[in-house]
Amino acid sequence: MNLAGPLQGIRVIDVTTNVSGPSLTMILADLGAEVIKIEKPDIGDDSRMMGPLWKGEGVYYLNINRNKRSIVINIRSEEGKKLVYDFVKDADVFVENFRFGKAEKMGFGYQDLQEINPALIYCSLSAYGQEGIKRYKPGYDAIVQADTGIMGINGSEDEGVARVAVSILDQGSAMWGAIGIISALYHRLKTGEGQKVETSLYETGIFWMGYHMLAYMATGEEPVKLGSNHASFAPYGAYETADNPVMIGVSNNSLFEKVCKVIGKEEWIEDKRFKTNLDRVKNRKELNHLIEKILKTKRSEYWITKFEETGVPSSMIQPVSAIMTNEQTESINMLTEIQHRKINDLKIPRLPFQLSKTSLEIKKAPPLLGEDTEAILKERGVNQETIDELIEKGIIQKND
Amino acid sequence: MNLAGPLQGIRVIDVTTNVSGPSLTMILADLGAEVIKIEKPDIGDDSRMMGPLWKGEGVYYLNINRNKRSIVINIRSEEGKKLVYDFVKDADVFVENFRFGKAEKMGFGYQDLQEINPALIYCSLSAYGQEGIKRYKPGYDAIVQADTGIMGINGSEDEGVARVAVSILDQGSAMWGAIGIISALYHRLKTGEGQKVETSLYETGIFWMGYHMLAYMATGEEPVKLGSNHASFAPYGAYETADNPVMIGVSNNSLFEKVCKVIGKEEWIEDKRFKTNLDRVKNRKELNHLIEKILKTKRSEYWITKFEETGVPSSMIQPVSAIMTNEQTESINMLTEIQHRKINDLKIPRLPFQLSKTSLEIKKAPPLLGEDTEAILKERGVNQETIDELIEKGIIQKND
Repeated sequence: MNLAGPLQGIRVIDVTTNVSGPSLTMILADLGAEVIKIEKPDIGDDSRMMGPLWKGEGVYYLNINRNKRSIVINIRSEEGKKLVYDFVKDADVFVENFRFGKAEKMGFGYQDLQEINPALIYCSLSAYGQEGIKRYKPGYDAIVQADTGIMGINGSEDEGVARVAVSILDQGSAMWGAIGIISALYHRLKTGEGQKVETSLYETGIFWMGYHMLAYMATGEEPVKLGSNHASFAPYGAYETADNPVMIGVSNNSLFEKVCKVIGKEEWIEDKRFKTNLDRVKNRKELNHLIEKILKTKRSEYWITKFEETGVPSSMIQPVSAIMTNEQTESINMLTEIQHRKINDLKIPRLPFQLSKTSLEIKKAPPLLGEDTEAILKERGVNQETIDELIEKGIIQKND
Repeated sequence: MNLAGPLQGIRVIDVTTNVSGPSLTMILADLGAEVIKIEKPDIGDDSRMMGPLWKGEGVYYLNINRNKRSIVINIRSEEGKKLVYDFVKDADVFVENFRFGKAEKMGFGYQDLQEINPALIYCSLSAYGQEGIKRYKPGYDAIVQADTGIMGINGSEDEGVARVAVSILDQGSAMWGAIGIISALYHRLKTGEGQKVETSLYETGIFWMGYHMLAYMATGEEPVKLGSNHASFAPYGAYETADNPVMIGVSNNSLFEKVCKVIGKEEWIEDKRFKTNLDRVKNRKELNHLIEKILKTKRSEYWITKFEETGVPSSMIQPVSAIMTNEQTESINMLTEIQHRKINDLKIPRLPFQLSKTSLEIKKAPPLLGEDTEAILKERGVNQETIDELIEKGIIQKND
């Protein structure tokens, strides 16, 4: 096991804020890259104040900024810009998620930085992409969920509009950006050539909708909201029991037979209403009603045990409190305890994959604002006098 | 622009089925890798029959299998196994998503294949990971959404259980697997060393829940279902108008001021119920009610125009039919038309990122079952007589 991670030796200059950009650079950091997070004076990354706060630190920030170092620079000042340009000279990757056109205005466009370092991999992460009428639009995860059709099909029929409750566009676009950057690094290792990587929340949203779009093209029918059900399979969904609902998923006849046996309805196996998946999908409402009537006679634990014994995919609807401490989460070490200067019992989830020969360790807690300002500048040969002068002028800030 | 893609020259042996595995290998294929999709006789990948069908082809299958070649091999037969082992000899990547332990039983475990090719990158994509009591459990996207807490917070308060309407665990784990594999390829290019990559739907689900888990640790409070609202911000959500709902997202005071001006309620800017984001979150219900009362007096188009003019993040709740053909989707070329032997007007979404110097083209339609069986074997020097014999014995199948 190599403790360094596959991207050891890669240096990333990160001027991103909020969720998408910092999620992207966290992936690179966990993979072993050195990430220098450049933050604005006084406030830093806006996500530091996205509540709830934990000992004064925003949980959004804490979730996606481990393994990075923080330096505070006023990059709008001429002297601040010069510091960034100096970083870019020997950096491998630069990541920005400014509003469209702002990076160029500030002197941090791809052309500007490529001139300083032709082998640089430059990544732009935006709301709507770098083309089209909407490219100037601001966009949060939920706004773009609405604009890409995801929100229109999420939730239950005849019920209110519901966004997807996790950041599938912010963090999804971060993942695509990471795939692009690592692919570009691979290309560079072979050819020496740098390039620009672009991704956006909008593209990510349209892509999540892939099979819904194809289904629409195939049938001409708008998909409807199906709650916990699945358009292509039945029975598939959450059913009430005597206490809590249980989720089951049946995708073929053999699993349906198992369900019938568990609930004591073996006659349904040959029932023409339910014989094939197509029949079951057509008669979904009737089938759901009949299954639920039976499941309501006993408690969820009874049913889950029975379903698990027979191999029917099934689960309780777990609350957040349970997923952190259950046996499975612990067996696979999903949560890592990490020393933080303010928070004693901080635990954060590791990336959801593992490499057998290179570690993806969480080594450093999410930094306090400007925690590494001095150390980073000193490594680059800036002397104490100059550092003090830059602090005096408000170009940089440190945290003691 | 290099038309080949950054992973040109990489050969992937793909024995996966359904959604997660094929999504992963599609990412590698779009990046330029050669993907050989090995399918079982007669039926092939189960997703070929996941409805709705389009001219006999399942839309799930069509969505995630372009740029691959299909070969039909009965990999349970001795002769079939030998063919796979021969492929592995000079392959770069092997991807499987069998149930836990099955790859090993069949002779396709990491140890087996590493002996044949020590530099191989081997990826296992599973439901619950390779450790822990649940590792034997089958799991679909929605089952694991229930088991990782996602389903418990998705949807609206006091309403039915709703899964996330797009495959965030199947396709999310595919993305993590791709990040792992490309990182491992990068490591191999530097060191020559192959390794094993592991990911799962369960790990992916727990990771999506990161900030919800941290919020729970910070506050001790279970998150509640918030429909289109956001726990950390207000006003943030979908509001009824005279016709269709509109989504707005306000994360700071400056955006709130803009909303107040648009809806003619500038007095709210200094109103102590709504002065800070914290106040607005606390008084969310009251604020939502008041905003909606005003928005209901005019039509959605009026409000969207006003919000866009002033820079308030906003959107209609788009239906699927609209997202495919709107100006933004077309400007960024999100959908690619591709020639298919059965479907004349097939369009599929490209990956949601772009590289400036290497193309991510969609060059080949999702293959028919066994479309490339003969071509692939001939490339490997298998002669026509042997091919015919293997077909005769039912070891391979082709499609004319």
